[in-house]
Amino acid sequence: MGKESSVNKNLKKKRVLNFIRESGETSRIEISKNLSIDKKTVSVIVDQLLQDALIVPAGYRDSKAGRRQELMRINGSHSNFIGLDLGATHIIGIITDLNGVLLDRVFFEIRPGISVQLILEQLSRITRQLIDSKKKTGTISAIGVCTPGFINPENGISIVAENIPGWHEINMKQLFHDDFKLPLYIEDCSRAYGIAEKWIGKGRNVENFLVLDIGYGIGMAIFVNGQIYSGSCYRSGEIGHTMAVRDGHSCTCGKNGCLETVASGKGLARLAREGMKQGKSSVLNQLTHGNEESVTAQDVALAASMNDEFSKDLLNQAGSYLGEALANAVNLINPSKVIIGGGLIGAGKMFIDEIQSSLIKNTMSGLLDDLEFTLSEAGVDGSAYGCAFLAMDHIFSA
Amino acid sequence: MGKESSVNKNLKKKRVLNFIRESGETSRIEISKNLSIDKKTVSVIVDQLLQDALIVPAGYRDSKAGRRQELMRINGSHSNFIGLDLGATHIIGIITDLNGVLLDRVFFEIRPGISVQLILEQLSRITRQLIDSKKKTGTISAIGVCTPGFINPENGISIVAENIPGWHEINMKQLFHDDFKLPLYIEDCSRAYGIAEKWIGKGRNVENFLVLDIGYGIGMAIFVNGQIYSGSCYRSGEIGHTMAVRDGHSCTCGKNGCLETVASGKGLARLAREGMKQGKSSVLNQLTHGNEESVTAQDVALAASMNDEFSKDLLNQAGSYLGEALANAVNLINPSKVIIGGGLIGAGKMFIDEIQSSLIKNTMSGLLDDLEFTLSEAGVDGSAYGCAFLAMDHIFSA
Repeated sequence: MGKESSVNKNLKKKRVLNFIRESGETSRIEISKNLSIDKKTVSVIVDQLLQDALIVPAGYRDSKAGRRQELMRINGSHSNFIGLDLGATHIIGIITDLNGVLLDRVFFEIRPGISVQLILEQLSRITRQLIDSKKKTGTISAIGVCTPGFINPENGISIVAENIPGWHEINMKQLFHDDFKLPLYIEDCSRAYGIAEKWIGKGRNVENFLVLDIGYGIGMAIFVNGQIYSGSCYRSGEIGHTMAVRDGHSCTCGKNGCLETVASGKGLARLAREGMKQGKSSVLNQLTHGNEESVTAQDVALAASMNDEFSKDLLNQAGSYLGEALANAVNLINPSKVIIGGGLIGAGKMFIDEIQSSLIKNTMSGLLDDLEFTLSEAGVDGSAYGCAFLAMDHIFSA
Repeated sequence: MGKESSVNKNLKKKRVLNFIRESGETSRIEISKNLSIDKKTVSVIVDQLLQDALIVPAGYRDSKAGRRQELMRINGSHSNFIGLDLGATHIIGIITDLNGVLLDRVFFEIRPGISVQLILEQLSRITRQLIDSKKKTGTISAIGVCTPGFINPENGISIVAENIPGWHEINMKQLFHDDFKLPLYIEDCSRAYGIAEKWIGKGRNVENFLVLDIGYGIGMAIFVNGQIYSGSCYRSGEIGHTMAVRDGHSCTCGKNGCLETVASGKGLARLAREGMKQGKSSVLNQLTHGNEESVTAQDVALAASMNDEFSKDLLNQAGSYLGEALANAVNLINPSKVIIGGGLIGAGKMFIDEIQSSLIKNTMSGLLDDLEFTLSEAGVDGSAYGCAFLAMDHIFSA
């Protein structure tokens, strides 16, 4: 019985800590009321949390009854966290405090063809730079990292990332332990992006929602009952590899006609390249100085904003495919919110509108009743933020 | 504190009851070990459950230490439950005991064109017949009913069932309360089918799995962390209304080219009818005595087994579309098991093989590693069983 009691006590402590986190600022009486824990127990727990420096006093507020209530909030400086987003075309490293407040940031562009060894060295250099940052406010407690493709959080291995040539079975946990002696948590980039959306974006206080991550590749974070859903072997959310075009273009995954081949940054660049070879866009020709091989999805977005018909058609087509795939996901999962994120959401209103109208057209009408469509708030650093939140999870989870 | 203690006690009691249910037969010492509850507390709870007649003694077993262990199991006769499956073409009513053992069964075929009023009268008549069944072993505690389409379990309303013309906003809870004074639980037919698969089929002890229900319509039950996932407004699993054919045939849901238009019982009957009008199948002509309007998916399956090329093509095409849609679901949800069920799984090995090969072709290879493909065990009474399990849920859930 004694043992169980201590388990129960720890559970209550975590519940109080999480309530303070979700409230921003709160008082002992509010905690007691909301969690149905008696005032005495709450006071004991709050004192412990203050002593652990996990929370700090946050001034006073007058209650309705006229009594001053002492407020508490999470102590950001309790510890700091590093979030590393390794994408196909970039590394973004950030350091945050326990409130998820950004303290420092490093950006590195991955040029096509760079070796896996060089990427890993760069990742290590960026991590060192963040560890040594003068903007730190506390000890660094853990690192979170995301990679595109398949990961195994149990052993910390990044299994494969189709969009990074040569990337295969990289033991990230080992590498980071050897270099920095810090615990490492690993996640898929799109799920990390979703985690950021849950904490600092449009996923706050939503139970069931989808986050579509449209970048160089396409992924999705699925939230069920307020929790990220990873699947039976951490491979959920591969919407980029659902079929868009029957017997379509070959995909890096080995299949044909995947959504990524026609609606991702990578897919748009390929379609633009092919179009340029057929002389379909003088604007893209100008933007790239006639170098088809260098054309990117950003060029397509820019050309579309300059009213280039070919580029507008490409973006419209991509939006239409994205809406169809999203509708299939909505028909299955019945979320109350769909959040559109990733680098490509900067491609303009026409693109986003096309995603939305295709989503509406292809979703069963009864599933639209309760559905909100919205743009991501997490921004370009979303996946890196998600990794920082992942790294601080051991502090908040029981 | 006293209040919380009683909440905790009740939780423990439910945990013990559920452990006994999942074990089939078990002893006090096994319960204590598996649930980490001290032996004294377990003994008190077991005595209470015996007194409540929720469990009964089940003989003895010798332990390794040489001591005889008294075994317990769920008392099936504690109470009985009615499960009602209202499909587009049938009503199946069953009565089971608390172990889910079938006691009695009634079947009624719904002929096309029958009025909603007549269907409801029939449902009531069947319920009365089951309540009065001589095969009862206990008091009837609750009724579970499923209808195709959208339901609201909170108010017991069957909102709409596209495949039953005229079915709209039927307050099932009220109807059953008025007629039988028994609590009613309502579910969607495909999710009910999945619930049966979880308890008496291939979903036992599986955390994340999908059950595809291919009948007159097509639906899906999604299980996440061992629990049925209903979505944000109880409308999850509408895989039948994901897109199979871009700009395809109009669907009852108002969209075009849905999976149901080409791969459901209803869709196959339509395609067969159209083919017959074009003289494409002499076998179907023989089977239906030249009456195209009467042709069903069962006729197509029979004709295919008689080597009718047109019918074989239809089934192959349907299997291929089903595999594609299923692959999209797998790519998103990363289940460890996919269970194929519903009336149409009787359409032959060729049909099932085509679903499987199309699933494999269209699933991202990394998601096939951990995926099992299997046929349903719940059988034609699956949805009715699921409803009976739904009705007994209030006894097992805390």
